[in-house]
Amino acid sequence: MKTLKSIFLLVLFACLGLVSQAQDSLIIRKIYDEALVNGQAYENLRYLCKQIGPRLSGSPQAQKSVEWGKDLMTKYGFDKVYLQECMVPHWVRGEKEVARIIDGKKIINVPISALGMSPGTPKNGVQAKIIEVRSLDELKELGSKAVAGKIVFFNRSFDPRFIETGNAYGTAGDQRFSGPVLAAKLGAVGVIVRSLTESLDDYPHTGTTGFTDGDIKIPAAAISTNGANQLSALLKQRKLPEVEFYFKQNCELLPDVKSYNVVGEITGSEKPNEFITVGGHLDSWDLAEGAHDDGTGVVQAVEVLRIYKALNIRPKHSVRAVMFMNEENGGRGGAKYADEAQANKEIHIAAIESDGGGFTPRGFTFQDISKEGLVYVKENWKQLLEPYLADQLKAGGSGADVAHLRKLNTAVLIGFRADSQRYFDIHHSAKDVFENVNKRELALGAGAMAALVYLIDTQGIQRK
Amino acid sequence: MKTLKSIFLLVLFACLGLVSQAQDSLIIRKIYDEALVNGQAYENLRYLCKQIGPRLSGSPQAQKSVEWGKDLMTKYGFDKVYLQECMVPHWVRGEKEVARIIDGKKIINVPISALGMSPGTPKNGVQAKIIEVRSLDELKELGSKAVAGKIVFFNRSFDPRFIETGNAYGTAGDQRFSGPVLAAKLGAVGVIVRSLTESLDDYPHTGTTGFTDGDIKIPAAAISTNGANQLSALLKQRKLPEVEFYFKQNCELLPDVKSYNVVGEITGSEKPNEFITVGGHLDSWDLAEGAHDDGTGVVQAVEVLRIYKALNIRPKHSVRAVMFMNEENGGRGGAKYADEAQANKEIHIAAIESDGGGFTPRGFTFQDISKEGLVYVKENWKQLLEPYLADQLKAGGSGADVAHLRKLNTAVLIGFRADSQRYFDIHHSAKDVFENVNKRELALGAGAMAALVYLIDTQGIQRK
Repeated sequence: MKTLKSIFLLVLFACLGLVSQAQDSLIIRKIYDEALVNGQAYENLRYLCKQIGPRLSGSPQAQKSVEWGKDLMTKYGFDKVYLQECMVPHWVRGEKEVARIIDGKKIINVPISALGMSPGTPKNGVQAKIIEVRSLDELKELGSKAVAGKIVFFNRSFDPRFIETGNAYGTAGDQRFSGPVLAAKLGAVGVIVRSLTESLDDYPHTGTTGFTDGDIKIPAAAISTNGANQLSALLKQRKLPEVEFYFKQNCELLPDVKSYNVVGEITGSEKPNEFITVGGHLDSWDLAEGAHDDGTGVVQAVEVLRIYKALNIRPKHSVRAVMFMNEENGGRGGAKYADEAQANKEIHIAAIESDGGGFTPRGFTFQDISKEGLVYVKENWKQLLEPYLADQLKAGGSGADVAHLRKLNTAVLIGFRADSQRYFDIHHSAKDVFENVNKRELALGAGAMAALVYLIDTQGIQRK
Repeated sequence: MKTLKSIFLLVLFACLGLVSQAQDSLIIRKIYDEALVNGQAYENLRYLCKQIGPRLSGSPQAQKSVEWGKDLMTKYGFDKVYLQECMVPHWVRGEKEVARIIDGKKIINVPISALGMSPGTPKNGVQAKIIEVRSLDELKELGSKAVAGKIVFFNRSFDPRFIETGNAYGTAGDQRFSGPVLAAKLGAVGVIVRSLTESLDDYPHTGTTGFTDGDIKIPAAAISTNGANQLSALLKQRKLPEVEFYFKQNCELLPDVKSYNVVGEITGSEKPNEFITVGGHLDSWDLAEGAHDDGTGVVQAVEVLRIYKALNIRPKHSVRAVMFMNEENGGRGGAKYADEAQANKEIHIAAIESDGGGFTPRGFTFQDISKEGLVYVKENWKQLLEPYLADQLKAGGSGADVAHLRKLNTAVLIGFRADSQRYFDIHHSAKDVFENVNKRELALGAGAMAALVYLIDTQGIQRK
């Protein structure tokens, strides 16, 4: 009897499991239909890019984007919409940079772009001999005797062999972030960094340096990959003293200003003080429209909540769309969000960030998930996301904003993974415009994120 | 003893299996490194698109592309490079089409493009009342009484809910292919078909109709999606007699001309009369550069053989890169290739076609593979392709060219599956230009195809 009963129960649970999988599958299909047929992410992005445009922290456009975000989520009728105040750095580029290779009597203009948090040059620019290196180690070995008084030129290329371009960015990025700090310590008078992209073109790609308050600071700029190749070739051809570099930039760091995260929420029916956050960052670099970085993440996060409302699904946990401020040069918004969560004793169970572009979805990476949790995700959710080609589910990083929540020790942090092949062609450059976003790819990403939020809300997710 | 021996053998085979997997994994890594670091597909495509351009069957550019293909593969030093003669249709567009919606006294110009194999209009164009339908069935039900003397306007949209856009194309495509034939039978004087794309813009997307020799033929053209929406809205607002449509096109079908497939081969070391073919089609529509359709397939096929040579891998079977002629409006090249294979008693074990654009790879679909063969592929090859994100391996269609080989009953036919989200935005329209191809995405596709050829060559593949 006992055996029979056990078998009966086993069969029953198996059937219930199948029924529940089938229900989940139906709801996910509805989520995608809403994203693909009635999706508003693309038109919201158009507005953000074309009507507001670049929105570097502290800029008037950043402030406009905060107002837009609040209005948008209010218009959608989310249960709560509010701002979270935080002070942000206020770095300004000033007038367009000028740069020249001085090859004896020949002068070659090259495209550069000041790096975030860098100081300007003296008013008339800086001119010096160039010292080309491929790595920080190489520069360290040269030492201050060789470096002092020179402009350091970091010129290690993106490694094209990485399949996911984020890894190429990861391994080349120290040149831009840590290179200027090191060069300054060694007495250099300026730094030129090869743009962090595999694409060979004339667009400099900006981005932040790691300069902090106590550091000696020297002017640092990104040079286009074509410019870098030209400069490097010249340095090889000529004897060093013949070639000098000149650049002028009048960027500066002004006092911090007040800014905001924008938060929208659908309050949970069963556990209103437990939160699933989905977000992207509202600020962007100033060279273009911040379309893929990270307008797409912002509009996808809002779209997740809009889909919930459109389908009349009431989540058990509170689900929040967060537009983080100041991801690009400070991370103050992300820090503020986590601080507030802690202060308000909120229990965060999961947070998803979309900050790898609005390209076609490939899946998600999970940070701080337990081993068993990841097995569960792979065994139960992978098949649900497979029809949508968003089923690469593995351990990995999340995102710079949501990662601040790690200090709460309650949440699994999740990175939405879009196809990465085109991302660094446009990243932080003048090419990051609305026209480079594809409507369907953007909508599919919102669908994937909403589907994952739904699965987490209904089934939970197990933290390490 | 016997048991011990069995266990020993089992362990030995398991170890050999692991060693072999590890070796395969190393070679696939080398294949990808070659594609990503030294890849020539992108520059070859640039030449094909920019120096030769549109290459509709029978055109001078098609002939130029044949010569280019032969020269390119000869330059690469493949073992055999030759042409396969075939007669192809010679349809020409003539001067640019004109189309107008006549809304009472108001005239609205709209962008159209004659459909392949369509006749021209009378010299002064054709003007008639419009009858809008969403399907062939709807037109059939209306019958010849309602249709005779009118211009039929097929206006069923792409269904955005399909995750793979090829399915949306598949279900909307009857309007363009079979619609004109049916409308002609019912006495219509012209046909306008909504462009087969989800994208809302002003580009008409051409493509072939199903007109064959015996058919009554009437002028047929594609209208841009914006134009279709405008026309449909007007037809809803106005009483039918008020709105007419006018269009003029002077395309025509000239006598067949001689053309060629271009074939390059690396001859097999062990089984030279057994073939693995990898191909794309060399002809393209005339509105742009045939970049994604199908310049990318052509240069990827050549790249597969180039990688073999560069890595000094000698395949056991003969591996061929085939540039098929006339896929777009006749399929004569594909038919010719299969005819020749049959006549020469070649044994074809597999053929891969890349004709879904040079986008980021997702995997392959296998046609005529056995059940056990597919299980083998999933159990052994999926993990090898997973690091390259090209591991979606499932049963499905192959490609219009290689599918002709089905009559040999020896080959597994395989479709290379690139991400499909952007394909129909540009397909058969003026947007299909080199600039819309991404270098890395193209190279990754060539890598995936070369890896699959390598696995088939070394391990075989089991036909149904």
